[in-house]
Amino acid sequence: MLKQGPAKKVTVYVGEDVHHHGEPLYLALVNYLFYHGISGATVTKGVAGFGADHHLHTARILEMSENLPIKIEFIEAAEKLDALLPKLLDIVGEGLVEVQDTTILKAATAATR
Amino acid sequence: MLKQGPAKKVTVYVGEDVHHHGEPLYLALVNYLFYHGISGATVTKGVAGFGADHHLHTARILEMSENLPIKIEFIEAAEKLDALLPKLLDIVGEGLVEVQDTTILKAATAATR
Amino acid sequence: MLKQGPAKKVTVYVGEDVHHHGEPLYLALVNYLFYHGISGATVTKGVAGFGADHHLHTARILEMSENLPIKIEFIEAAEKLDALLPKLLDIVGEGLVEVQDTTILKAATAATR
Repeated sequence: MLKQGPAKKVTVYVGEDVHHHGEPLYLALVNYLFYHGISGATVTKGVAGFGADHHLHTARILEMSENLPIKIEFIEAAEKLDALLPKLLDIVGEGLVEVQDTTILKAATAATR
Repeated sequence: MLKQGPAKKVTVYVGEDVHHHGEPLYLALVNYLFYHGISGATVTKGVAGFGADHHLHTARILEMSENLPIKIEFIEAAEKLDALLPKLLDIVGEGLVEVQDTTILKAATAATR
Repeated sequence: MLKQGPAKKVTVYVGEDVHHHGEPLYLALVNYLFYHGISGATVTKGVAGFGADHHLHTARILEMSENLPIKIEFIEAAEKLDALLPKLLDIVGEGLVEVQDTTILKAATAATR
């Protein structure tokens, strides 16, 4: 459970066609976070971009989704992040991982919908 | 009007099927920001994710858009944010709200297009 | 090449129909970053938003993509960013540019796929 106050915001950038043990890396990562008690994660897909392999990918121009950038973001308490980080970096492999300070103004609450 | 210099970056995470008084919460929130003079806001929709209710949502696997994560971001001066925050948190309800420090290098300017 | 440790995260917000010398501004910007040795960039397209011209844009309601918000993000070492910033701000024109501190936990590595 996240609490109000200081926390860490982690962002991972990988190509959508990068795989980890046969499944898309971003799904492997989201699954890892989900099953290790991270409170939430958001995956967004870019419409263009380039990465460490330095090819320019553009959905609009190419009209195909060739390795477009995927961004996985989550927010967690510093101590919990520290515990998961070694395995997380291992899963990410060739991707980029950055961490920023943030402040939680309101933690999400589960609701009956 | 935003100015160059220090500012706050607010990010709100909600499920796309969460509602507020009969309309999607993210639209209620964007409308609130728009009509209270916030300089700009960007809404992005995730392709996968999970939240406080801890169900895993994946557009690609499920091939349906069942409560995918929505992210609302805006940048504002600290004083202006402080004034809007209580009502904003009230609208957000069960979502997650975080705030970070940022520095505006160039404020947006309205242009005739 | 990015390295582990402190870095800058730059985010640019522009409308998707804003142009620069005849091409979409976000593409002009990504090209500029690509050809000036920035290690990576991610472009995401919003589903709703508003900006400095203060019109409300919503893909879902309008069922058209009239000037939806585009976000361009990249992470770079402070010195490299400083060198590119004047030209970058010139290209961006009417858009919003913000910079935040971040820490690279793992730099991306090129891989044979």
